[in-house]
Amino acid sequence: MLDALSMPGNPSSVHAEGREARRVLEEARKHVSRLVGGRAEHVVFTSGATEAAAMLLTPHWTMGRAALEFSTLYVSAADHPCVLKGGRFSRNKINIIPVQSDGLIDLGALKALLAAHDRDAGLPLIAVHAVNNETGVIQPIEEIGRLAKSHGATTIFDAVQAAGRIPLDISAGYADYFILSSHKIGGPKGAGAVVGNADLMMPRALIGGGGQEKGHRAGTENLAAIAGFGAAAAEALKNLERVDLVAKLRDRFETAILKQIPDAVIHGLGVNRVANTCFFSIPAMKAETAQIAFDLGGVALSAGSACSSGRVGPSHVLEAMGLGNEASALRVSIGHDTTEADLALFESVLVNIARRRKGSAKAA
Amino acid sequence: MLDALSMPGNPSSVHAEGREARRVLEEARKHVSRLVGGRAEHVVFTSGATEAAAMLLTPHWTMGRAALEFSTLYVSAADHPCVLKGGRFSRNKINIIPVQSDGLIDLGALKALLAAHDRDAGLPLIAVHAVNNETGVIQPIEEIGRLAKSHGATTIFDAVQAAGRIPLDISAGYADYFILSSHKIGGPKGAGAVVGNADLMMPRALIGGGGQEKGHRAGTENLAAIAGFGAAAAEALKNLERVDLVAKLRDRFETAILKQIPDAVIHGLGVNRVANTCFFSIPAMKAETAQIAFDLGGVALSAGSACSSGRVGPSHVLEAMGLGNEASALRVSIGHDTTEADLALFESVLVNIARRRKGSAKAA
Repeated sequence: MLDALSMPGNPSSVHAEGREARRVLEEARKHVSRLVGGRAEHVVFTSGATEAAAMLLTPHWTMGRAALEFSTLYVSAADHPCVLKGGRFSRNKINIIPVQSDGLIDLGALKALLAAHDRDAGLPLIAVHAVNNETGVIQPIEEIGRLAKSHGATTIFDAVQAAGRIPLDISAGYADYFILSSHKIGGPKGAGAVVGNADLMMPRALIGGGGQEKGHRAGTENLAAIAGFGAAAAEALKNLERVDLVAKLRDRFETAILKQIPDAVIHGLGVNRVANTCFFSIPAMKAETAQIAFDLGGVALSAGSACSSGRVGPSHVLEAMGLGNEASALRVSIGHDTTEADLALFESVLVNIARRRKGSAKAA
Repeated sequence: MLDALSMPGNPSSVHAEGREARRVLEEARKHVSRLVGGRAEHVVFTSGATEAAAMLLTPHWTMGRAALEFSTLYVSAADHPCVLKGGRFSRNKINIIPVQSDGLIDLGALKALLAAHDRDAGLPLIAVHAVNNETGVIQPIEEIGRLAKSHGATTIFDAVQAAGRIPLDISAGYADYFILSSHKIGGPKGAGAVVGNADLMMPRALIGGGGQEKGHRAGTENLAAIAGFGAAAAEALKNLERVDLVAKLRDRFETAILKQIPDAVIHGLGVNRVANTCFFSIPAMKAETAQIAFDLGGVALSAGSACSSGRVGPSHVLEAMGLGNEASALRVSIGHDTTEADLALFESVLVNIARRRKGSAKAA
């Protein structure tokens, strides 16, 4: 990545420097495609997952030279805002699929929505997350994909939180498109991708101009970030085998939470979750208050998601799961670089919080 | 920039790491705004100038909470493709302003177009380049801005090639928005900006989702690229004073061209041009052939612009200037880091090309 930063070439230039830059770009494309079992030529690089979602979530597509129209977009209530807002679909063309109290997408409801879809108006497009960005809950993507296919729908999975954490295989046919983010798999901020299972059917370009990315995304490529994304993808594919180690460490964080604060609620505890996430609520304590306590103790936790300009509000994901009063929760992110010392520091803050709660309980 | 790369924080997070990232972001915003005489709070960061153009070139704007519609977009025939294609305007809503044979935008034609604009249908929006990306020709931006204002038009200048090369001052009132690119002022690829003279009137967001950039551009910020962009902007502002040195060096490149190849044509020679660009044609020699000769000699030149995926075709800028047969030209980019050795290497390739041309002339 640092090599790419000091490369003066533009991958679209034909001189030697340009060709060197292009090699870096194509190497990254290969690594990113492998992470999801796809082909390099079906990867379109973007500036991030949010742009990738904005690109894919549009009624206007092309199939070869023919135009193709989607009449309705189906998203889940627990999706990331960049999916939930529906991109270029107008508000009345977006249908919300409910989620159950365990965080799983309600497949019965999805089936009913697809059965009721008016095919004369246009095709159905489904965009849902593969793994939830707040709870870490893993959605049954193969089942969703099969259900979608049986109703003639095209399926986009926001795989931002899934890549490198669960196996993904676009060649298996359950997904038409994956959305990926570099910095969520340990790469730099500033790169993302759309990976298709083919490139015959593509959305009308969001960013037009030059012919980069086969005309699907204009603008000089962010070579350094893409190089870093590629390296991170290669690393993530390797780490996928060691993901159990992270899960074991995560379980120890959760044991610590429940030991110090026995009435704490760990969200999605009963269903499949990715190894790196623990999302929990402390009853009668605002997430913001707890977050400050952790911050002062040197532990950086997120309250809800970090995607909304520093706002700490109720989590729309927990609200979608029907958790009204507990809609304020904290997320611990655990990775291969998390240490015993991190766990000890985390537990020491928990001890402080537990002591403070006992104090207020006595005072009250 | 390297510091920013190793910062784990997300500028939207409220914990300590997030706040540190935010400081880096706001520091960069200040430097970028200063480069064009604007205010930091009127800067919106994007992934590059192409995205910035796609964001601004839309009929749909807001003014506070009210909607605002532009009915026609006016662009010049010599604009960069990302402007020329008109973003979210449909093709029949884009009017082309011709350029003269010297490369300057035809002000008489612009005046006539604006006088004929149907104000009942909506407002006029003008988007033109401040400096041409192929010829380096400097447009009379203050005059264009005044003319636009007198017809009630809003003016966007693509200042990608102008920033750091000519003084720009958005507070002077001739421009409503500037489009900037990081890697064209020596910063990294992957960052760009829209700088407004206010933020009351803004285009409908191109990339929605989270609330970053005050809701004007969702997605986690590319912190490292933006930090590099900020540093490059501070440097570019300083270098603006030393731009005459670059112009003198550029003149020596042009003297070398005309000495070795007396019938070469240097485009825009008679009008104001930025110091860093020399765009020239060798009669009866394809730009691609000459480019290969330079490339083999170790000199990286561009044929036309590098923005179209390695295609080397006729330049639409030269065609707009009415140069049909010479629409194949080479661009030399000269900077503060160009050396005497670079000039000597360049001239040695010219000598070879001149010798080869003499040979083919004799053979014929």
